[in-house]
Amino acid sequence: MSIRQLTTLLKRRNTILLLLCLVAFYLIWFQLAGLRILEGSDGHHSDQWEERVSKELQALRLQASQMREQLTRLGSDPAHWRHADLATIYVVTATHAVPTQKADLVRLMNTLSHVPNLHWLLVEDAAHKTDLVRNLLRRSGLVYTHLNVPTPPEYKLKPTDPRWKKPRGVLQRNAGISWLRENLEIVDANGVVYFADDDNTYSLELFAEMRDLQSVGVWPVGLVGGVMVERPQVTGGRVTGWLTHWRSDRAFATDMAGFAVNVRLFLNHPTALFSLESQRGFLETDLLTQMGVTLDDLEVKADQCTKVLVWHTQTLKADLKIEKQLAKEGKAPSNAGIEV
Amino acid sequence: MSIRQLTTLLKRRNTILLLLCLVAFYLIWFQLAGLRILEGSDGHHSDQWEERVSKELQALRLQASQMREQLTRLGSDPAHWRHADLATIYVVTATHAVPTQKADLVRLMNTLSHVPNLHWLLVEDAAHKTDLVRNLLRRSGLVYTHLNVPTPPEYKLKPTDPRWKKPRGVLQRNAGISWLRENLEIVDANGVVYFADDDNTYSLELFAEMRDLQSVGVWPVGLVGGVMVERPQVTGGRVTGWLTHWRSDRAFATDMAGFAVNVRLFLNHPTALFSLESQRGFLETDLLTQMGVTLDDLEVKADQCTKVLVWHTQTLKADLKIEKQLAKEGKAPSNAGIEV
Repeated sequence: MSIRQLTTLLKRRNTILLLLCLVAFYLIWFQLAGLRILEGSDGHHSDQWEERVSKELQALRLQASQMREQLTRLGSDPAHWRHADLATIYVVTATHAVPTQKADLVRLMNTLSHVPNLHWLLVEDAAHKTDLVRNLLRRSGLVYTHLNVPTPPEYKLKPTDPRWKKPRGVLQRNAGISWLRENLEIVDANGVVYFADDDNTYSLELFAEMRDLQSVGVWPVGLVGGVMVERPQVTGGRVTGWLTHWRSDRAFATDMAGFAVNVRLFLNHPTALFSLESQRGFLETDLLTQMGVTLDDLEVKADQCTKVLVWHTQTLKADLKIEKQLAKEGKAPSNAGIEV
Repeated sequence: MSIRQLTTLLKRRNTILLLLCLVAFYLIWFQLAGLRILEGSDGHHSDQWEERVSKELQALRLQASQMREQLTRLGSDPAHWRHADLATIYVVTATHAVPTQKADLVRLMNTLSHVPNLHWLLVEDAAHKTDLVRNLLRRSGLVYTHLNVPTPPEYKLKPTDPRWKKPRGVLQRNAGISWLRENLEIVDANGVVYFADDDNTYSLELFAEMRDLQSVGVWPVGLVGGVMVERPQVTGGRVTGWLTHWRSDRAFATDMAGFAVNVRLFLNHPTALFSLESQRGFLETDLLTQMGVTLDDLEVKADQCTKVLVWHTQTLKADLKIEKQLAKEGKAPSNAGIEV
């Protein structure tokens, strides 16, 4: 082999290798770009979504700067209104697939997204997480954790059962509690846990009331138990009983919406959970009893329990008479290809 | 240079090139895999990105709410620091005294208070304005106008009547329209009018969709008319009919929640109003017809009417069995001295 032949070979081989490299790069780049294009049309995280989030951020920044300017003009010292360390509020919500599910979640989301330092634990009553809930959470702008656990069939309501017949959301709320135990450290856990149904109504004041509680906070709940309001009986600043007209003899005769718990209680009592076997109306009492809570531990909130800051509203089941008729006749559903 | 040296060099160069190729492949593959891992099963935004955006949104909201609070305390009128360049959205809502009234208004307020440059016209179906509504509006932080007009007894629903039996909120919506005519100048009016029921569910995207419309904007409405979704039929970007299963022959077969109107239309047609005499389901059609609107004028919103951004949810009537029993027995109501 002559030196010239070798040099030519060397050049050729290098050229071939370089060409191969370029082709490889090109293919991989193309694949990457392809992925991006496909995702765009998938719509999970479209460019439009990114654009919308960016726009909200820009608008908020603009708003913030305008307000800061206005405050300076008014001679307000920012040092007086900046308090950085807020405890986190962990809101645990069970959700299941019904026609009004997305509407209820959107409305709750619109409320929760006003609240600073809030972490939403949304737990689907389902064997698998759904795209509907996943996409909703992604677009919410909230800090969230998406969980799922199905309720066993024997504990599910039949369509004709009244809502109170079986305890609802038990395993889902427990999944939220377990997540907190697995993900928070006892030493520096600082926060409050609240169990929020997706169709109740929450005022923003409620979250401010529960923010700093150290054990268990209680307050009135509107439109529950067959009356306009149920509430703790307060004497001399302490809870001394329950102003309810149904089973006021329960140790904690409060609706799920009427209390919140410092997260340390869940960490210090690592086996306390809601029970599928609780008697009707005893879910709350059975949980708090497991954690050794007594009436003396209760922190009286909402202006000595005289203000209604949460309402046990319920969303009317959607009337789908015509939709069912369409299904019977083998016709396409009204929402073919559209998420409602 | 000897042949042996050259061969060694050749081998080394090839080895080096091959190694480089491998490294390049490895790096690119790793990047791809990394992207996939970060994406989870869907979407191309990493969790880190999401987390960062979520955190900034939370921080900005916290900042904004603190500053808003401070500004209110200092007596600064929000109207003075509204975004100058955004058209105003006038939301007209009729409300009447039922046990769930405050809850529904609180929930709607929590949604509306996210929307910049929104003016809420809240009209009570009552002979006098109530303290409940007045106080709620005062604390809302919203720009609002509080009106009232009672529905004559002969046009009121009896407790046993189904909701659709009589048109609801007609005079109240008209009071909102009249207020706009009296208080806006034709020459520089810039805004959009939307008729929002207090128990429907509104996504924030809906308000962005309607903000810039020039005549009448239309979009799908979820959970209405006995089906999952009713919507305009869109062909080539224009409305060509209505995908409803009840009276799709109406000129504008849309629910009240399915359209908004540029305020200039109301100013240019100074007699157009809702009518107490409209046939069931014809309130919307009768109003738009009076203003000379045709299908050609309709602006197609919500991604060619393929997205559901508003849901016709209804709040279940409060169950007050025990409360009624208490009244019969001459006992004090559960809410004596407490606003619910």
